[in-house]
Amino acid sequence: MSGPATHTGAPHTATPDGLYEVTEATARAARTAPLLAALGRAGRSRLLAAMADALWADRERLAATADEETALGVPVLLAEIARTADQLRLFGRVLDEGSYLGVAVDTRTADGTAFPPVRRWLVPRGPVAVFGASNFPFAYGVAGGDTASALAAGCPVVAKEHPSHPRTCALVLAALRRAATGAGAPADVVTMVSGFRAGIDLVRSPQLTAVGFTGSVGGGRALFDLCAARPSPIPFYGELGSVNPAVVLPAAARDRPAALARVLADSVLTRGGQVCTKAGLLFLPEGADGDAVLEALSARVAEAAWPVLLNPSIRAAYVLGTAERAALPGVRVLTRHRPAGTNPADPVPPVLLTTGAATLRDDPESVLTEECFGPCAVVVRYRDTEDLTAALTALAPSLVCALHAGDTDADTARALLPLLAAGAGRVVWNDATCGLRVGWATQHGGGYPASTDSATTSVGAAAIGRWLRPVAYQGVPAGFLPDELRTGDGNEGAGPHTVPFRLDGVPLPGPGRTNR
Amino acid sequence: MSGPATHTGAPHTATPDGLYEVTEATARAARTAPLLAALGRAGRSRLLAAMADALWADRERLAATADEETALGVPVLLAEIARTADQLRLFGRVLDEGSYLGVAVDTRTADGTAFPPVRRWLVPRGPVAVFGASNFPFAYGVAGGDTASALAAGCPVVAKEHPSHPRTCALVLAALRRAATGAGAPADVVTMVSGFRAGIDLVRSPQLTAVGFTGSVGGGRALFDLCAARPSPIPFYGELGSVNPAVVLPAAARDRPAALARVLADSVLTRGGQVCTKAGLLFLPEGADGDAVLEALSARVAEAAWPVLLNPSIRAAYVLGTAERAALPGVRVLTRHRPAGTNPADPVPPVLLTTGAATLRDDPESVLTEECFGPCAVVVRYRDTEDLTAALTALAPSLVCALHAGDTDADTARALLPLLAAGAGRVVWNDATCGLRVGWATQHGGGYPASTDSATTSVGAAAIGRWLRPVAYQGVPAGFLPDELRTGDGNEGAGPHTVPFRLDGVPLPGPGRTNR
Repeated sequence: MSGPATHTGAPHTATPDGLYEVTEATARAARTAPLLAALGRAGRSRLLAAMADALWADRERLAATADEETALGVPVLLAEIARTADQLRLFGRVLDEGSYLGVAVDTRTADGTAFPPVRRWLVPRGPVAVFGASNFPFAYGVAGGDTASALAAGCPVVAKEHPSHPRTCALVLAALRRAATGAGAPADVVTMVSGFRAGIDLVRSPQLTAVGFTGSVGGGRALFDLCAARPSPIPFYGELGSVNPAVVLPAAARDRPAALARVLADSVLTRGGQVCTKAGLLFLPEGADGDAVLEALSARVAEAAWPVLLNPSIRAAYVLGTAERAALPGVRVLTRHRPAGTNPADPVPPVLLTTGAATLRDDPESVLTEECFGPCAVVVRYRDTEDLTAALTALAPSLVCALHAGDTDADTARALLPLLAAGAGRVVWNDATCGLRVGWATQHGGGYPASTDSATTSVGAAAIGRWLRPVAYQGVPAGFLPDELRTGDGNEGAGPHTVPFRLDGVPLPGPGRTNR
Repeated sequence: MSGPATHTGAPHTATPDGLYEVTEATARAARTAPLLAALGRAGRSRLLAAMADALWADRERLAATADEETALGVPVLLAEIARTADQLRLFGRVLDEGSYLGVAVDTRTADGTAFPPVRRWLVPRGPVAVFGASNFPFAYGVAGGDTASALAAGCPVVAKEHPSHPRTCALVLAALRRAATGAGAPADVVTMVSGFRAGIDLVRSPQLTAVGFTGSVGGGRALFDLCAARPSPIPFYGELGSVNPAVVLPAAARDRPAALARVLADSVLTRGGQVCTKAGLLFLPEGADGDAVLEALSARVAEAAWPVLLNPSIRAAYVLGTAERAALPGVRVLTRHRPAGTNPADPVPPVLLTTGAATLRDDPESVLTEECFGPCAVVVRYRDTEDLTAALTALAPSLVCALHAGDTDADTARALLPLLAAGAGRVVWNDATCGLRVGWATQHGGGYPASTDSATTSVGAAAIGRWLRPVAYQGVPAGFLPDELRTGDGNEGAGPHTVPFRLDGVPLPGPGRTNR
């Protein structure tokens, strides 16, 4: 679980190529925007493939550097680089397929009277900012999902350097810029700024059109507020925090306590519990069946390796946060450990707490309903479905939730699914909350504070939509329009189109089929 | 152009059915949400059709009452009721067709390894608020586009009564609620609140999930700020204000001055200039060809009937706003009229002003770049393409813009189109800015302040998207899922599906084709 306890987060020895002051970075991004758009879908698909290749070619050095800065371990980081490269390539397929453009053409009224065609599609917003996360230096970093989807959309990215892994950021930035130049694109499709003040100035920049952010509720809300307070507000896509519930129904607890203990432990301990999809509240039925799951789970957590956490402030918040929760009335500590060391590089013990469902129901503002980042979870025991429902209803929206059901839980499961889906972006059946698959059907978001914009996703093919906005052309002759819009002039039956589109309400296929 | 100068905006004689205090209205909406969702697509399609029928059946009384309150004229209002009913029916077709749900199913990795299916689709947000506009009591009112699209999505609507046409609001509300009951739906799918304070309390209500608004920059921005400042922020879809440019290129001015004068006059004078798509800035080339257009246009405006404006505050803003603009240095008044009367029901004169492009370029903060609601426009004379480009670049984003080009303007048009599309939601070629077609390809939005959320539209089929958010189900057995998601279990080739969907990245058609 834990990586080498190194944490040699030394600063840069020289200013990285592509690191600029905010005004310079945003001016470069604004100049680059029309060039990135002009590359077209094929050119941007090649750009993303070149970036994926560049990251993969440099993977050994990237993983070693990131391990020095994050202590996540080289094998874990190599797998994350692979996922990050795959993500860049997924958006290449999204571009090739083209239905993300949402092309729609209206040519006649309901009674068949023709009018000058109206053609609607989505265009890139312009320069955007990407604030990466501490816990995924690659998949949610300078080359992460927000960057991949923004570049695919045609939006130049100004990345904010993450202060807990600056050297990794610089290496990733260099790889992306080398790849861009090699693919015939301007290096400035990705630039970077550094420092707390730069982050604030960046979201206030008049040239900026949108912000992607993965991080804490405090920092994220502050930036959200700045975006909303601009003279001309811009969207802030923030993934802030989430206490993801995992619900074990009675028959599941009775039938498979050992398997549940394994899945729940994975949901709490993966990457030292430092993932946004960690299960933070584990709902178990009262009684012997629930006790058996709890016993097996406690044993697994007690045996787990102690992780070194990402940085000193996350570590301090974890040590204080677990102590604060353990001291609450009605809360019992299930894990008994020697105290953690005092050195920031010392590993920390996983912590399992337990309480009754009434605690959450009676105090929805309890600190137990707030995220505690790290290998910690609260086991919530419930008496019956009513008790469970009341506790779940009191929770804030989450990124993900899990429902573990056995054969005779079907009716309860059917009743609970709408409640779970009411706030969460993803509902998992009989599996761990973490381990997000990146594909066409991926949803990574949810109600606030899981996301500041529950209409979008930060991961998966649909993420491209957050960087686009619609424009309709009314009566503009086809010759003045981009390839994708040169349709709807009466010869649709004649052959394939560049992209799938909708003609007078009827969906028509594109030129071919693109598989994942 | 003008309606009867009646303005007998008397208050209600009794509390309308469906008018509640905010807490009662939002509680009823929250209770109604699952019932509206449970109607399914077919049930909601029937609901919208019943509402369209109810409005149409009551059209004579509705138009007469609205004319008393808005002075827009019965024929204009009857046409608006027809458009409003058509709009409700359009969303019925959107529901029947079903691709708005964005169903995507992933079942295997890129190398073909199967995993428990991930199924993504869009679900209704929950109760929403709709603030209608003063200028379209039907199409942007209690039964307008926001209400139609929200009900289609499955979101109960709490409408804010418009203070300048309360009796029209009450009649529309009654028609919608009668139709709902008749269609087997709860009457509370639409409720209403009244008063300034209620509007504020409404957007702050914890039960509310989104707001649609059409109105002024001042009022809209205040409500936007309240939505952003909530403990749990919600989206505010506001259409605030827009100074829409209409650009006449040299060859167009040379070839068809009379036709241009007609189209431009329509763009300024339709409904007394009280439309969000009014052309506020008319760019004409300097020289004899531009002079000819201007002369013909001035003649048309001078001959136009004086409209009675919607309400006293709009009238006061118009009288003051045109006087303020007329007094600016570098601005000349082209229309010479006797002064308007002082009674709120007196008609007002259309006003045409003129200035040079340098005025806008040198002072982008000039009041000339702000909307002046009513039959007023500023003719901006430009020297050459460079002069024109500089002035256009200085403008705020708009809902719509028009480009009038002749045969030899092709190169200039090609260069200007990206600039015009950079801010506007709709680009019109050789036609009036007003007269929005409501269909599948409609876009009615734009950058701020034209819209507070440029990713969405307030009119047309795509408007349904603003009331939805994505949820993914991972590994949930098909039997626990709604019809539309019961696919992706390996028998996709066997027959038609309920809705179009994407399987492992490949788009597959729905059961049939729905035309507009």
